[in-house]
Amino acid sequence: MSQDSEETRKSEAAAWFAELRDRICAELERVESELTGPHADLPAGQFERKAWERPGGGGGVMSVLRGRVFEKAGVNVSTVHGEFSAEFRRQIPGAADDPRFWASGISLVIHPRSPLVPTVHMNTRHIRTTKAWFGGGMDLTPMVPETPDREEFHAACRSACDAHDQGYYPRFKAWCDDYFFIKHRGEARGVGGIFFDDLDSSGVQADGWSRDFAFVRDVGLAFLDVYPRIVRRHMNAPWGEAQRQHQLMRRGRYAEFNLVYDRGTKFGLMTGGNVEAILMSLPPLASWP
Amino acid sequence: MSQDSEETRKSEAAAWFAELRDRICAELERVESELTGPHADLPAGQFERKAWERPGGGGGVMSVLRGRVFEKAGVNVSTVHGEFSAEFRRQIPGAADDPRFWASGISLVIHPRSPLVPTVHMNTRHIRTTKAWFGGGMDLTPMVPETPDREEFHAACRSACDAHDQGYYPRFKAWCDDYFFIKHRGEARGVGGIFFDDLDSSGVQADGWSRDFAFVRDVGLAFLDVYPRIVRRHMNAPWGEAQRQHQLMRRGRYAEFNLVYDRGTKFGLMTGGNVEAILMSLPPLASWP
Repeated sequence: MSQDSEETRKSEAAAWFAELRDRICAELERVESELTGPHADLPAGQFERKAWERPGGGGGVMSVLRGRVFEKAGVNVSTVHGEFSAEFRRQIPGAADDPRFWASGISLVIHPRSPLVPTVHMNTRHIRTTKAWFGGGMDLTPMVPETPDREEFHAACRSACDAHDQGYYPRFKAWCDDYFFIKHRGEARGVGGIFFDDLDSSGVQADGWSRDFAFVRDVGLAFLDVYPRIVRRHMNAPWGEAQRQHQLMRRGRYAEFNLVYDRGTKFGLMTGGNVEAILMSLPPLASWP
Repeated sequence: MSQDSEETRKSEAAAWFAELRDRICAELERVESELTGPHADLPAGQFERKAWERPGGGGGVMSVLRGRVFEKAGVNVSTVHGEFSAEFRRQIPGAADDPRFWASGISLVIHPRSPLVPTVHMNTRHIRTTKAWFGGGMDLTPMVPETPDREEFHAACRSACDAHDQGYYPRFKAWCDDYFFIKHRGEARGVGGIFFDDLDSSGVQADGWSRDFAFVRDVGLAFLDVYPRIVRRHMNAPWGEAQRQHQLMRRGRYAEFNLVYDRGTKFGLMTGGNVEAILMSLPPLASWP
């Protein structure tokens, strides 16, 4: 591929992740402003942004909202580049002989105040070494049993997948179930969604990169469509103290998963990533009763 | 060593850990009953015990108190035996050729309700493979700056050490500072104390085992003396909401250390230990604001 084309693709991907961030933040602020139920007496939350630089190259922007619907919503974008250390080269596709990498992505975790509103995680990213691929996914964690949410969320995942490849949804759903499993508890973190990595159709199809990028954009748009809908359905309903206590316990499990198993978290912490951005996924309040 | 002598030592060690548990639990219940300050309107907490069996051999007893001085105090004893799996044999002293092990110990973590009362951890254990050694320590985590507590706690550690070996305290204090460090935060978990492992004087002194065991008993007794004293000094003083919020944030860091770095926790979770007992160290409520 020409240098120009490679640079264009990097720009397009990074620009999309930033645009998606803007649209998601705007929509979450809209949801904040619409609350009429519990905590409507509090002011509607707004995102605050904080830029950071990566010593090795590049940086990112954290957007955090501490509001009345969303107790803590963190939306991070970053675009970084540099060289993988010797110990990581062999673990990363295409980095064994040339350690240079470029990576851009969006990552978010939302912890709503109401136990009736599910917690959610979404991430999409583009990584380039001597290879280039996309990864990401989205998964839902209802704090109280809520079957319609699960079905609706999965329908949105399936729909985003099916428009691109009928094989994606079954494969990426299974991958998600496998990934977001708290082994020592013997329980799933939530009700799943989709998870994918190493997505690279460029060797298979002439316009493989563009098709993969289109799929990744659709995952982001599916999130933007389905999650606010689920939030609006529940956010005005009253809840009880027992439900809140159950939510805090479930959030403890969420923290356990992220700190013990999540590859992105561990990779970031071990390689000197931005700790504040990496750990923004942790719940505002959690319990181990 | 004769078979008899080995069995006697196992019994003595396990009996001591159980006796120490009884004395600590009784003393913590006494402290609970003495509260006159904030939350004195709540009933004094009492320990509840729950036994568990280890599928591979042995088991333990969890003692948990959820009270008014101690929001959550967990005191575990266990005596287990079995064989290390192939992957662990090389990591454990004396287990490379003969994977059989026996281990007994006491481990506790106390999360007080008042941010003015420090959180504390204490653990002592005896492990036997083809070798035999003791390990353990105790360390203090004040939630608000409290210099006299730090000094008093360290004086107790030093005194327990100095009675046995003048070299112990400097070495075990440094080991503790090194071990209880949250690398990704670049900060210590608390104000330290002592930490030691692989303690085996049997090759150095004729009565090495008895001397090591005497030291380990003194560590437990030092804890029993100094910690309740620190608690009583602060527990009746009123505190403010800002101090409570700071405490919850510090507890989040405590959870980070235990889930990301603590060897005992990771070892236990990865080897199918009793999850409830292992994670009893996690705080009743923690925040990542």
